[in-house]
Amino acid sequence: MIVTVTLNTALDLTYRVPALTPRASHRVTQVIERPGGKGLNVARVLAALGYETVATGFAGGATGAVLRDGLAATPVRDELVETAGSTRRTVAVVDAADGDTTQLNEPGPTVTAAEWDAFRTRFTALLDGAAAVALCGSLPPGIHVGAYAELVRLARAAAVPVLLDTSGEPLRRGIAARPDLVKPNADELAQLTGAREPRRATLDARRRGAHAVVSSLGPEGLLAATPEGLWRAAPPAPVKGNPTGAGDSAVAGLLSGLVDGVPWPDRLVRAVALSAATVLSPVAGEFDAGAYEELLGRVKTTEETP
Amino acid sequence: MIVTVTLNTALDLTYRVPALTPRASHRVTQVIERPGGKGLNVARVLAALGYETVATGFAGGATGAVLRDGLAATPVRDELVETAGSTRRTVAVVDAADGDTTQLNEPGPTVTAAEWDAFRTRFTALLDGAAAVALCGSLPPGIHVGAYAELVRLARAAAVPVLLDTSGEPLRRGIAARPDLVKPNADELAQLTGAREPRRATLDARRRGAHAVVSSLGPEGLLAATPEGLWRAAPPAPVKGNPTGAGDSAVAGLLSGLVDGVPWPDRLVRAVALSAATVLSPVAGEFDAGAYEELLGRVKTTEETP
Repeated sequence: MIVTVTLNTALDLTYRVPALTPRASHRVTQVIERPGGKGLNVARVLAALGYETVATGFAGGATGAVLRDGLAATPVRDELVETAGSTRRTVAVVDAADGDTTQLNEPGPTVTAAEWDAFRTRFTALLDGAAAVALCGSLPPGIHVGAYAELVRLARAAAVPVLLDTSGEPLRRGIAARPDLVKPNADELAQLTGAREPRRATLDARRRGAHAVVSSLGPEGLLAATPEGLWRAAPPAPVKGNPTGAGDSAVAGLLSGLVDGVPWPDRLVRAVALSAATVLSPVAGEFDAGAYEELLGRVKTTEETP
Repeated sequence: MIVTVTLNTALDLTYRVPALTPRASHRVTQVIERPGGKGLNVARVLAALGYETVATGFAGGATGAVLRDGLAATPVRDELVETAGSTRRTVAVVDAADGDTTQLNEPGPTVTAAEWDAFRTRFTALLDGAAAVALCGSLPPGIHVGAYAELVRLARAAAVPVLLDTSGEPLRRGIAARPDLVKPNADELAQLTGAREPRRATLDARRRGAHAVVSSLGPEGLLAATPEGLWRAAPPAPVKGNPTGAGDSAVAGLLSGLVDGVPWPDRLVRAVALSAATVLSPVAGEFDAGAYEELLGRVKTTEETP
C-alpha cells in the first residue's frame, strides 16, 4: 500500500462566476465541493490507477466531516486523525469569461501538541506495511517547521521510501533529513537554492540531501537528478487545459513507478503522462484515462550529462 | 414575539486578504463565520434590543448545521425547517489594503414542494401569537416567484402586521398582496417603478399596494410614505464605516417601532439610529449599542407634503 500524508487537508470549493470584478457582488452559478489538499489529490489518482492507497493527516469540525464524506466515496482508505479545529476551505473562483482562476486559501486550524502526537503514532503504525509514503503540502498552524524532517526520519528508520512535496522552510529542513525524492516546481526550487536555471537548481537541491530531485518545469515536463543519472521528460506536444492538480498527478506517477520498481525514465514517463492527462481532463484535478494510456507511449525522455 | 423569515439563509464567511488580485493565489489571514441571510440578521438585532424573536425559513446539510449552531449561541429561537439540500455560503472578501469588499454568493439549495409545504405549516403555526412578521431576502431555487405574496396573504389572514424586504419579481408580486410595509433601497425601487427620483418612486411603490413604503436612501437616511404622512429621517451627520447589515438594522428598527406602537416619526428615528450605529460598529453587521442610544436623540425627521 501507498500512504499519502496531508497535514493541512482542505475542503476545495470551485465557484464559477460570469466575470470576477473586485468590489462587485457576484452570483455564483456553479459550486463544486470536494476533498482537497495535495496528499488527498495524489491518493485519489493512485487509487484510480488501482493502487491500494491510504490517506492520513488531519481533519476536523464540520468541514472535516464533509471532507471525510467525500473521501468515503472514493477507494482511498481514510486514516485521517481528528482535530478539534475545523478543516480549512479553499475557494477557487473561476471567471467564466476568460477561464482564469483566483484562489483564496484559508490558513487551516491550529493543531495541538496532543493532536501532533496522535498523528505521529498513527503515521508510525501505517509505515508498517507501506511500500512508499508521500508527504505533501503546507503545514497547518501549530505544527513545528521541522515536522516533515521528523516524518522523513521516521520513514527512513522504517525503511519505507519517502517522497516530499512541500515548499519554503519545511522543504529546506525536510531535504536535510535525506528523503528519497523531492518534487519541487520552479518557484520552490528558486526559493530553496537561489538559482533560477532549472538544471543548476535541481543539482543544487540534490546536494542538500535528497537522493533524487524531480523538478517540474510546467508545460516543459520534468527534470530528474537521480543516483542513476540526469533525465528530462516532456509531453510530445504542448497540452492545453486546466493545470489544477497536474503537479499532484506527477507525484502519483512517480510513486507508482517507485513501488513498481521500474527504471527512472519509465517513472518520468508515467509522471509526465499523468500530469498531461490531468491538464487535458475537463474536470479540474481528474485525469483523462484514455489520454494517459495514449501518452505513455509518446512522452519523450532524454538523458543528459550531469 | 416577532417572527423573521429567511427562505435563503446563508453561512456568511468573511475572508480578509492583504490585497485582492484577480488570477492570483491569496492566503486568507482571517476567517469569520456566522449565520446570515437578511432575516437572521434582523432577528439578531431585535434579540439584542431585548425583543422575543423567532427565526424561520430553511436550513440543511453540513453548512445548515453550522448555521444552526451559530444561531443557538444567540437569544433568537430557531424555528428553521430542514432541507435535504445544503444551505448556501456567501463569501465576502475584504481587501485589507483599501477596505473594499468583493462578494460571492452561492445560489442555495433547491427547495422541494414538500419542504415548501412543511414551511407554510410552520409559518402558519408561528403566526399564532406573533406581534409582527418580516419576510426578508431572496428566494432559493425551487420556490415559486409568488411565494412572498402567498406569505403576505397568510399573515394578513391572521391579522399579523407583515413587512416585506426583497427585490425584483418577488417584490413586485409581494407588494400586490398588500403588505403593511416594504423597505426597498434605491436600486430595488428603481427596478420596481422605473423611477430614479426617490420621492416619486416611493409614492409610486405605495400605490402598488403596500400600506407603507420606507425607502432607504443610503447615507441620506430614510423616506417613508405612510397612511399618516410622508417623512424623511436622516442621521445628524454622515457616518463612516462598514455599511454591511445597515439595511437589516433599519428593518429591525421599523419592526421594534411597529410592535411598540410608536408614531411613524419615532419608528424612523429608531431605524436610522440603528442603521447608523451598525455602520459605526467595528464588527460587520453588529451595532454599537452606545452609539444607538446616543443617536436616538439626534436623528432629524422632517414631514413633507405628499
